[in-house]
Amino acid sequence: MTDAIASNVVPLSWEGDRATGRLLMLDQRQLPTEEVWLKMHSAEDVARGIREMVIRGAPAIGIAAAFGMALGMRAFEGPLHERPAEFSRIRELLASTRPTAVNLFWALERCARVAERLRDADNASLTDALFNEADQIFQDDRDNNLRLGNYGAALFEGPTRILTHCNTGALATGGYGTALGVIRALHASQKLEHVWVGETRPYLQGARLTAWECVKEGIDATLITDSMAAHFMKLGQVDAVILGTDRIARNGDVANKIGTYGLAVLCKHHNIPFYVATPLSTIDLNTASGDDIEIEQRDPTEVTHIGGRQMAPEGVGVAHPAFDVTPADLVTAIITEAGVVYPPYTDTLPTLF
Amino acid sequence: MTDAIASNVVPLSWEGDRATGRLLMLDQRQLPTEEVWLKMHSAEDVARGIREMVIRGAPAIGIAAAFGMALGMRAFEGPLHERPAEFSRIRELLASTRPTAVNLFWALERCARVAERLRDADNASLTDALFNEADQIFQDDRDNNLRLGNYGAALFEGPTRILTHCNTGALATGGYGTALGVIRALHASQKLEHVWVGETRPYLQGARLTAWECVKEGIDATLITDSMAAHFMKLGQVDAVILGTDRIARNGDVANKIGTYGLAVLCKHHNIPFYVATPLSTIDLNTASGDDIEIEQRDPTEVTHIGGRQMAPEGVGVAHPAFDVTPADLVTAIITEAGVVYPPYTDTLPTLF
Repeated sequence: MTDAIASNVVPLSWEGDRATGRLLMLDQRQLPTEEVWLKMHSAEDVARGIREMVIRGAPAIGIAAAFGMALGMRAFEGPLHERPAEFSRIRELLASTRPTAVNLFWALERCARVAERLRDADNASLTDALFNEADQIFQDDRDNNLRLGNYGAALFEGPTRILTHCNTGALATGGYGTALGVIRALHASQKLEHVWVGETRPYLQGARLTAWECVKEGIDATLITDSMAAHFMKLGQVDAVILGTDRIARNGDVANKIGTYGLAVLCKHHNIPFYVATPLSTIDLNTASGDDIEIEQRDPTEVTHIGGRQMAPEGVGVAHPAFDVTPADLVTAIITEAGVVYPPYTDTLPTLF
Repeated sequence: MTDAIASNVVPLSWEGDRATGRLLMLDQRQLPTEEVWLKMHSAEDVARGIREMVIRGAPAIGIAAAFGMALGMRAFEGPLHERPAEFSRIRELLASTRPTAVNLFWALERCARVAERLRDADNASLTDALFNEADQIFQDDRDNNLRLGNYGAALFEGPTRILTHCNTGALATGGYGTALGVIRALHASQKLEHVWVGETRPYLQGARLTAWECVKEGIDATLITDSMAAHFMKLGQVDAVILGTDRIARNGDVANKIGTYGLAVLCKHHNIPFYVATPLSTIDLNTASGDDIEIEQRDPTEVTHIGGRQMAPEGVGVAHPAFDVTPADLVTAIITEAGVVYPPYTDTLPTLF
């Protein structure tokens, strides 16, 4: 975790040496007004940090869990024959924190393979190997994001004005981002003129996190409410929309943060390209179409209360679908670390693997 | 102010007799969590209430100002020859509260005509006539809203599911509403199945005021973030969008709360009718098209701060256009107290007058 990365923002950092050091986790709940780094000395600390949303974003959670696994085994002092049980206990502890985060299980599975390979090694060696694995997961994520970002940036001549939604940045990943990674790559190659940041109600990930990353990065950004996007498209001030996804079906239908579908319709009306930037891991070839994706319904108080304050009357109904589904025919292209694909996605998505 | 009106919500009410009574003003700044009625004993009290946004909505402001004028003259105890100067002072005081509210000047002009007609009458008679005029302005607004509401409701067979934006209800008018008046009329005629209330960032007039009115009225309503509208349209759960306007140009272009234009585009994509409900007073035949309407740019902190709490980082750019312009070709019909008109609006709007 010592190499330079092409970003001024990281969600995690290591402090000290491996024998006595600790994982630092940026407390995203306190952004953008306070930048607080919490010190994680143990697997229990890491598990609590993930569960309590100190860190969010599936790739970032996976990386944190791998470090949690290493920290957990570093503390083991028992005999060798008791180690597998302790490993299982810690793995279970970490896996239970955010049970829908795919990257979490994938990262813990990578750690389990290391433990299996070194089942007869002394504990210092196993711990060291687990730290190596965590570093590698961290590094792989950044490498993939950088590749994805460069593929995306190559789509534009510049100067380009991008509109994005939610947070798909360094905070959600190993430190670069997917859709916001493309924006970083455009900025690095001096092809970025301006970014419109949709605030992304109800959670305000755009206002709280993406806007903060843009300020940190020196990217010229303007925060807008989600309802302003159409106005600026009409004024001709948006050249493309780029955002992330939680899941892509085999036919190219895209499930992503609520508000995504509306932006796609607005893009079509204004003849603006609509790009989805995502790691290969979100492409689910086993899901035929968006009709098969269940939409998570979340707590109504996330809509009615903002910053702890009640903004709506008692007694009114509230809807809170966390995601919507954008049909593939509104998606101009899908940008991944393996390249960019265009419709018909049923034919082109499988070529990425 | 004693007649029954077809609404459970009024922004203003009179308490006591005319000689010693007072104007009660519902403090809209404290809605929806607290229902506080402030007592206005004088023209100064009313002026402060308007200036400090206890009451908002152009028609409601006009009505309040007329009562302020009556309260002001009630307190006059000087000789008759000094009365015109005192009338002018109070008129000026009230006119300065919200200098862009057209209805404010129109209501004060009506009061001035009363004062001119009764310039030789004793002060008790003038005061009584001013209270009569204020009552009449109040009543006329409700009558016009009811007519508008009935014209609008006649467009639907029912059961109908309406989506609306911002607050165009009893709180903004004499106690019924324009777009929300149509919704009230649909409800009264048992043709309303359901209302989707867009929260209307950044001010949250939908969440704070429209949702509150719906609860008060027993209207089945569901609050959504503005970014959810497209999702529910796609699911086939929106039969029509009805909203208000601040100004309509001669060609039918509509200036209204930011977010209106995006909803109009989404309606076109989903083949959903898009209606604008508005009093004749907002139709400006002297403005050729929306290109001639200047968009008010408001304070960025209304976007970055919610309920007093900072939600965005220091240093990020912020845009806050208060309105957008919806081109006439996206507007299915315009509903007024004089009837409903359809495109081409350049031909049909003048027939309303």
